[in-house]
Amino acid sequence: MPEKSPKTSRIEAFSDGVIAIVLTIMVLELKVPEHGGHGVWDGLLAALLPKLVPYILSFVVIAIMWVNHHRLLDSAQRADNAVLWFNNNLLFWMTLIPVSTAYLGDNPFDTVAVAAYGFVLAACSTAFTLLRWWLTRDEHGGFSPLQAGILKKSMVGTLIYTSSIPLAFVSVYIAIAIFFIVPALFFVPDALLPRWAAGKAAR
Amino acid sequence: MPEKSPKTSRIEAFSDGVIAIVLTIMVLELKVPEHGGHGVWDGLLAALLPKLVPYILSFVVIAIMWVNHHRLLDSAQRADNAVLWFNNNLLFWMTLIPVSTAYLGDNPFDTVAVAAYGFVLAACSTAFTLLRWWLTRDEHGGFSPLQAGILKKSMVGTLIYTSSIPLAFVSVYIAIAIFFIVPALFFVPDALLPRWAAGKAAR
Amino acid sequence: MPEKSPKTSRIEAFSDGVIAIVLTIMVLELKVPEHGGHGVWDGLLAALLPKLVPYILSFVVIAIMWVNHHRLLDSAQRADNAVLWFNNNLLFWMTLIPVSTAYLGDNPFDTVAVAAYGFVLAACSTAFTLLRWWLTRDEHGGFSPLQAGILKKSMVGTLIYTSSIPLAFVSVYIAIAIFFIVPALFFVPDALLPRWAAGKAAR
Amino acid sequence: MPEKSPKTSRIEAFSDGVIAIVLTIMVLELKVPEHGGHGVWDGLLAALLPKLVPYILSFVVIAIMWVNHHRLLDSAQRADNAVLWFNNNLLFWMTLIPVSTAYLGDNPFDTVAVAAYGFVLAACSTAFTLLRWWLTRDEHGGFSPLQAGILKKSMVGTLIYTSSIPLAFVSVYIAIAIFFIVPALFFVPDALLPRWAAGKAAR
Repeated sequence: MPEKSPKTSRIEAFSDGVIAIVLTIMVLELKVPEHGGHGVWDGLLAALLPKLVPYILSFVVIAIMWVNHHRLLDSAQRADNAVLWFNNNLLFWMTLIPVSTAYLGDNPFDTVAVAAYGFVLAACSTAFTLLRWWLTRDEHGGFSPLQAGILKKSMVGTLIYTSSIPLAFVSVYIAIAIFFIVPALFFVPDALLPRWAAGKAAR
Repeated sequence: MPEKSPKTSRIEAFSDGVIAIVLTIMVLELKVPEHGGHGVWDGLLAALLPKLVPYILSFVVIAIMWVNHHRLLDSAQRADNAVLWFNNNLLFWMTLIPVSTAYLGDNPFDTVAVAAYGFVLAACSTAFTLLRWWLTRDEHGGFSPLQAGILKKSMVGTLIYTSSIPLAFVSVYIAIAIFFIVPALFFVPDALLPRWAAGKAAR
Repeated sequence: MPEKSPKTSRIEAFSDGVIAIVLTIMVLELKVPEHGGHGVWDGLLAALLPKLVPYILSFVVIAIMWVNHHRLLDSAQRADNAVLWFNNNLLFWMTLIPVSTAYLGDNPFDTVAVAAYGFVLAACSTAFTLLRWWLTRDEHGGFSPLQAGILKKSMVGTLIYTSSIPLAFVSVYIAIAIFFIVPALFFVPDALLPRWAAGKAAR
Repeated sequence: MPEKSPKTSRIEAFSDGVIAIVLTIMVLELKVPEHGGHGVWDGLLAALLPKLVPYILSFVVIAIMWVNHHRLLDSAQRADNAVLWFNNNLLFWMTLIPVSTAYLGDNPFDTVAVAAYGFVLAACSTAFTLLRWWLTRDEHGGFSPLQAGILKKSMVGTLIYTSSIPLAFVSVYIAIAIFFIVPALFFVPDALLPRWAAGKAAR
């Protein structure tokens, strides 16, 4: 399918640009206050740590999304207008990650901040699942067993992220635990799978 | 025409870079005030919504422009210096979208903010129409019926955007309605058209 | 020379990225004060115009540099380590354009701000001339008549920019006039030249 | 190895994007205070120099990393998932360079700021060494003599950077000297080596 490649490659290039910027502007939040205290703890870590932890978490989430996006588009069977818009939808929700990360960094264990962070992750995960669903189904609307499995896993991950929104009002610690566990359990293993397994549908 | 492709591809790469940054730096405006109220409404949405709505609108406008830019350059017949400068002109006006979006977000129903937003969209639309006009006319200065149709639609959209500037002084609500209706009516259907229709002039 | 192309293409991609960001972050300066006056003039233009004019000027200067960089690398005969560092040197000085633009926007007719702006443009122009000198000389250290002409023009432009630094202490208006005249006289015509003239040395 | 090239090229494109942004957002720190003094020294250099020197240093460090990254990936023998994550790890630490640069710029000779800057450089250097180790070892886990030499040099540089962290608590001047000497001694010469020497393992 050589005639589709220019189109796919420009989707990749544009997405790479947006994802790279989303990843990097989060760092603008990580500012040590100019007139803070002194010493390693008072002057630096006390001010930085509550922002650094959400930053690391968001960095890992975005990096996982990039790796999976990379592999998904690699194996794309079609690149029509719907793909552009499913992709733009994903990029929209990803651009909100820095906002919710900064809000969480400013209000570390605040119920609303935790719920808002969960909402953005759930929306990103939904948008990614939609893109994956559109790109991997074959011409009869079916899926290869491998793709069906990945898709199912993707939907379970989305559901758990979504559950973090109400759970934050019960206990912020449960919701925060979800933010750490979901990437570890659901997406990293997939990203770390050997290429021959995940990329079978690809050329 | 393989000898033009390196040039076109670098215009695309540079435009993708600028558009990706324009899209993403708007998010820097979306900051929840550090010492605001509490709760979902007072602490988050009351501060965020007036900025989130213009952000979503601008995101959609820029995404539509990217999709159309993508398709237009795909079908480019020439890539001379004039193309570079028509494209730079478009990029210049697009870089003003974050400024006018932030101004609108700070002053949601202010006459001047609405008119300024309309001015920037009208200028972007004009710049895009000029680029399209230059790229799609054939060597005798004529257009294929398909391209003539798209170009006419593009000019009507520009005129309606331009009308939003004086209309904002009559009623900001009419102007704001235009900002929502024009993308919906003029650009999305075109973007959703099957590729064989819009891309006929392309390879 | 197909074996050098991957290297050159990555220099172009990286430069495009840096130049696109330099171009775009200048726009972060263009903020309308949140609690300013009202009306088109008091609320918008009085605050924006002193920053908008330097922005437009810098945008044009950077766009010209991008166009010329684009064409220069297109015709590159070699892509060794020296090229990487001459290019990094150019990128370094270009990253200072947003700083000097913001400083000029905050202090429109201030001697030091005008001189600093002239200094950065002179440094960029010097760095560009060095890159051009390295890339266009042939294996005996000579130049084609065409390249020698462009190089000479490039050096004259650099000298005039350099003269704007002391001239700013005589009259800021002379220095500001130089900022407008040099791109118009020295670099735009070159950028607008038909490709067959400027690109003769290219493939 | 033509089947791996799309993958490698997208790693390069994404890394280029992140590195270009990291390089450029540092410039957002370089702001001349709006209501400072007057004259070249009081109005400009007194405010700018303490931030400009760390900026130049970080720019050079990042540029060296980019050049070496460029050459390393050019010669990559494999591009599996581990490469993606060793690369993401490097990008993570590089995104902290602007934070530590800004902190150093705000507190020029402060022990903690100097140690924090040293920590980030040591972490970047470690991450780069890991990526190099993974990418250059052959299928039996061994290294060509050339690669073993580069790797050893890379590890010595990392050790010296690491030593700057405790040394900052002895004397900030020793640590600052390390920041200037290591790039000069350890990495620039490698970057300036003729391509045939460093790139022998490449195609």
